[in-house]
Amino acid sequence: MKRLHIVGGKNHGKTTLVVDLVRELARRGVSVGTIKHTHHHHELDVPGKDSHRHREAGAKTVGILSPTMTAVFQPTPTEATCSMDRYASFAPLFETCQLVLVEGDSQTTAPKIEVWRSEMGTPPLVSRDPSILAVVTDGPFTGSASVLPRRDVPSLVDWILSRFLNETAEGNHC
Amino acid sequence: MKRLHIVGGKNHGKTTLVVDLVRELARRGVSVGTIKHTHHHHELDVPGKDSHRHREAGAKTVGILSPTMTAVFQPTPTEATCSMDRYASFAPLFETCQLVLVEGDSQTTAPKIEVWRSEMGTPPLVSRDPSILAVVTDGPFTGSASVLPRRDVPSLVDWILSRFLNETAEGNHC
Repeated sequence: MKRLHIVGGKNHGKTTLVVDLVRELARRGVSVGTIKHTHHHHELDVPGKDSHRHREAGAKTVGILSPTMTAVFQPTPTEATCSMDRYASFAPLFETCQLVLVEGDSQTTAPKIEVWRSEMGTPPLVSRDPSILAVVTDGPFTGSASVLPRRDVPSLVDWILSRFLNETAEGNHC
Repeated sequence: MKRLHIVGGKNHGKTTLVVDLVRELARRGVSVGTIKHTHHHHELDVPGKDSHRHREAGAKTVGILSPTMTAVFQPTPTEATCSMDRYASFAPLFETCQLVLVEGDSQTTAPKIEVWRSEMGTPPLVSRDPSILAVVTDGPFTGSASVLPRRDVPSLVDWILSRFLNETAEGNHC
């Protein structure tokens, strides 16, 4: 599973960038998947739903099958393990995806790009994280990182494709 | 993936039976998974959530990773295909489960048990479906099917384990 993380501080526009990239990748015929990394589990575990009742009773893995969509819920491997293991559990269901964009997870050592808006007033993460390959911004940026233009989605996608779709090794990342 | 469907009419108690069976199976150390079959997809596709935005933009497969739970959402293969294919997409994530209880899906030819409450006033499905192996009920039942006692969950689980955990073949079901 080839994954690229889109990281950034709160309200720097991670979701909107992921959406823009997915739309452009899909338009070009690239099979793309996404993973949302979150520190909150409440949206995945709604009390009262039948699937919640199954899980509470002791079901390890819970699926939902509807005419248009399937979903599978599993416990995340414990935090003590390498994050590679957490993503490995996803791999079988993403095997038809040429690229997986992950929204968030600044702790991983996998390749990342950072979306940064100068007007938010918080410093970019890139200065502290060598796995951030480039900063995506339209504002003034004075650091030493590679900078990609946020407003030019086609050129962002060109950059991503040249970096990721021509590589064969997926690498091991924690 | 060894699966047993729990079928029955509306309000005959499918979810509660699944919950009772899961709890007893888990208590005995059986690794059990569940799948909820539904005709509605709205609970899986909540507009406004980030994962919905990813999907709307064109992501084929969408995952969510939280500290305690992972979820993966995919389009269901088209209804024109055999239902075996629909369940096959789940198989990799249920491979650690010794048994998978599926709530609903009366169309499948996979093994089923029917939960039936006489006081609901609707006829049992078993008379029309040879893949229903037994009727689970505490009320009067005059049909020709095998009857298992709803109130005696341990003996239901004994019956299930003797039928399913000793079989090696999983069979092909549509």
